[in-house]
Amino acid sequence: MPKYYSNGNKVLYLSNEFELSTVGSKYSDKSGILKDGFMRFMDVVTLDHVIEANFSRFGQSAFLIGINVVIQSPNDELHSEVDESYNLAVPAAGKPAYARIEANSVYGALHGLQTFSQLCAYSFKTRLIEVGMVPWTIFDQPRFSYRGLLIDTSRHYLPLRVIKKVIDSMTYAKLNVLHWHIVDSQSFPLEIPSYPKLWDGSSDNAILEHNRYAQRRGVNVLAEIDVPGHAASWGNGYPLLWPSADCKEPLDVSNEFTFKVIDGILKDFSKVFKYKFVHLGGDEVDTDTFMSQVAGSQLVMLRTHRMVGPQAYQYFVLRAQKIALSHGYEIINWEETFNNFGDKLDRKTVIHNWLGGGVAEKVTAAGLRCIVSNQENWYLDHLDTTWQQFYMNEPLTNITNPKQQKLVIGGEVCMWGEHIDASDIEQTIWPRAAAAAERLWTSYDKLARDPRQVARRLAHFRCLLNQRGIAAAPGDGLGRIAPGGPGSCYAQ
Amino acid sequence: MPKYYSNGNKVLYLSNEFELSTVGSKYSDKSGILKDGFMRFMDVVTLDHVIEANFSRFGQSAFLIGINVVIQSPNDELHSEVDESYNLAVPAAGKPAYARIEANSVYGALHGLQTFSQLCAYSFKTRLIEVGMVPWTIFDQPRFSYRGLLIDTSRHYLPLRVIKKVIDSMTYAKLNVLHWHIVDSQSFPLEIPSYPKLWDGSSDNAILEHNRYAQRRGVNVLAEIDVPGHAASWGNGYPLLWPSADCKEPLDVSNEFTFKVIDGILKDFSKVFKYKFVHLGGDEVDTDTFMSQVAGSQLVMLRTHRMVGPQAYQYFVLRAQKIALSHGYEIINWEETFNNFGDKLDRKTVIHNWLGGGVAEKVTAAGLRCIVSNQENWYLDHLDTTWQQFYMNEPLTNITNPKQQKLVIGGEVCMWGEHIDASDIEQTIWPRAAAAAERLWTSYDKLARDPRQVARRLAHFRCLLNQRGIAAAPGDGLGRIAPGGPGSCYAQ
Repeated sequence: MPKYYSNGNKVLYLSNEFELSTVGSKYSDKSGILKDGFMRFMDVVTLDHVIEANFSRFGQSAFLIGINVVIQSPNDELHSEVDESYNLAVPAAGKPAYARIEANSVYGALHGLQTFSQLCAYSFKTRLIEVGMVPWTIFDQPRFSYRGLLIDTSRHYLPLRVIKKVIDSMTYAKLNVLHWHIVDSQSFPLEIPSYPKLWDGSSDNAILEHNRYAQRRGVNVLAEIDVPGHAASWGNGYPLLWPSADCKEPLDVSNEFTFKVIDGILKDFSKVFKYKFVHLGGDEVDTDTFMSQVAGSQLVMLRTHRMVGPQAYQYFVLRAQKIALSHGYEIINWEETFNNFGDKLDRKTVIHNWLGGGVAEKVTAAGLRCIVSNQENWYLDHLDTTWQQFYMNEPLTNITNPKQQKLVIGGEVCMWGEHIDASDIEQTIWPRAAAAAERLWTSYDKLARDPRQVARRLAHFRCLLNQRGIAAAPGDGLGRIAPGGPGSCYAQ
Repeated sequence: MPKYYSNGNKVLYLSNEFELSTVGSKYSDKSGILKDGFMRFMDVVTLDHVIEANFSRFGQSAFLIGINVVIQSPNDELHSEVDESYNLAVPAAGKPAYARIEANSVYGALHGLQTFSQLCAYSFKTRLIEVGMVPWTIFDQPRFSYRGLLIDTSRHYLPLRVIKKVIDSMTYAKLNVLHWHIVDSQSFPLEIPSYPKLWDGSSDNAILEHNRYAQRRGVNVLAEIDVPGHAASWGNGYPLLWPSADCKEPLDVSNEFTFKVIDGILKDFSKVFKYKFVHLGGDEVDTDTFMSQVAGSQLVMLRTHRMVGPQAYQYFVLRAQKIALSHGYEIINWEETFNNFGDKLDRKTVIHNWLGGGVAEKVTAAGLRCIVSNQENWYLDHLDTTWQQFYMNEPLTNITNPKQQKLVIGGEVCMWGEHIDASDIEQTIWPRAAAAAERLWTSYDKLARDPRQVARRLAHFRCLLNQRGIAAAPGDGLGRIAPGGPGSCYAQ
């Protein structure tokens, strides 16, 4: 739902020579980001339908000739504060009639094209692409700058083709951060040139290509290495990273080599992951294990300072933060780091909530930024969480101070991979992620107070995803549910 | 599993200028079927992976330069008896080294390219496409000429994009007939220009485009109109086709208009569906309804001849057969027609088994042809049917007479659409359909006697489908099951 819209009740059709015009634009599009976006626009509105060439039964005034995209900024670097706003106008007539998008950045213009594509629909009657309810006037901008989706390539392999389709589908719902939980206890599917034995998967060049694919669609890629827990797989190539052969997690805090490896990873990351943030995890650390680990360790410093479990955990996280900062990153950490030693964290830390509600309130009161992913509402692997819950999960709950509100940079839905692979990822993400996407995009005053007001639009969006080849599940019932019985796509 | 193969233990890599050569071929490829097949080959072996251009570390002799495809027949019309055999040879060395496919038809050559693509794999180590275990020599041909998959667009809308992906995936398993159960009680999603009010969906041109897409990949499209049952939707536009407003099925046998409409449909079909067969359904007819229907009908002939339910059913089916024959089609009918009046059916009828085992034996004993789809083993919507059952379902069970064996033209797995739409069709079809596909393709003596011998290859095939963007489910357990827990694609 956009920030503002008005519409009429006429119909226009896309000309079969519908064109992109950039008259008046200050953006050169040397890199082809806009042109490719326009090609994708044409692809998703045409959708393999046969467009009849017999236009003669309509007057020329029935057709939209093209879209004029006017962009103010010549710069197309994608960054976390990029202006994503756009205005879209579709006239009811004109000689000739052009739709118009105005945006400060090419990424705002891409959002405008996406919105426009969702006003277009193939008509089986006229066999043309219709733009219904013209004229349209839309002003739009996101409420939050961070609108994320987590994918997890450690628990199951996700083929590149599948990840690319996830990225495409994110743009349909205007999500803009792909949080890539690359590594976990189960595998390390990413090449680290500095420490080649860690690796069992994608190469640097593949990552660059992957990131470029996302960035050109306005999607930032947030890389995560989750330390010191969830990292048992690191030791397959470098067993020194394990406290002992029997105890493989957390990473050995008492061994300098551990931090050298983290430094090597983040150095290599800085060459391929250009987003401002890196995610350092920090969740679910078994500090008891740390205690025994430290007791048996070789590192004199730790012994000398008598650091037992919790202190060792803090020591590890803060040291990893420093390493990330030294490579130019700001840091995202899971909320346990805040819950345990929030006052010690670097002020550039963003706390990623997951355990439950109420965390953003505490984090922002402490002056730190926050991303909301409370598991009871925004974990996609919880199949019993309904889209209504996804929709109604308000990141600013109980936060009334405007300064604190600004510190909530957004939210993220999490598609953890224990039971997810190429066979079920799309229908587990969609359509529920779209309900959260509206919560993150739409101005608070335009959000529905009752999810029943959203049901019809969401059903429509899920059919749109299906038409575009995305296997979004029916909305009613559990996540990833099969259709209950025969019927129209719009009715389930 | 091919009819014959031998292999070595060397490795070659695809050159990054890997090319298609047609030296020695008698096929001109004016229509681009082979060239497009080669493009698809390149696409599925490359799969968005980054191929490293640094070849210098290998000698020239490590590379395959291209593939030489030699086709005997200049004709590329796809028909039900087209020669699908091929020979594939991949050398271990050469100056320069070319793989070679020999085939009588371009469709055999496409199967050869498909097999070759499955010998290729991206290596994360060398970052090249490897062809392992060279040299290869493969002779191959299908056991059955009819290897089908049914899809059902009446119960749920299947977007064109989704159907095209199903067709692509069929070629990976060398299935060659898409049985399109277009219409049923729930909807009539196909334009019939002769009777435009039937229609609520795709246009003629869309069907042509769809069929062309399938045919160019070697997949025949078998259109079904299921009469006289399963046809309530016909009356939405033409209520005269209903026996009464209260009784919408079967179609009104006592009204000449019913047969006029069937004639119109089949006339229109004959322009767009070029396969030799049309499927006329004929299953699950409620002859009791027919009885009351006839009792209240206007058609003097039926009354005069005192045709009660079963006779009216037979009358209907035989008359529909005659209409189909008049439009140049041979006929496929569901098995109830044979079970009830097999001796009356036109000799050009193929009986489509579905109710259970043992039917092919009776049908072929009666001298008619048969397609096997016994529901307890080959219905994909039965989620509790395992891939092992799909694999072990032998169409020629108890048929020893070679003449009778020849009358079994093949088999088909059926993806009925009550609980299937764009969100779950791929993982309900795959990988179980692949187990049946081997049963239908591979020579009897090369088929595994114990499905455990197939498990590893099938797991590999499902990962191959995943890599190609097809959402094939894990093989173990129920159909469409989610992965049980973290792990390699090959292990679930």
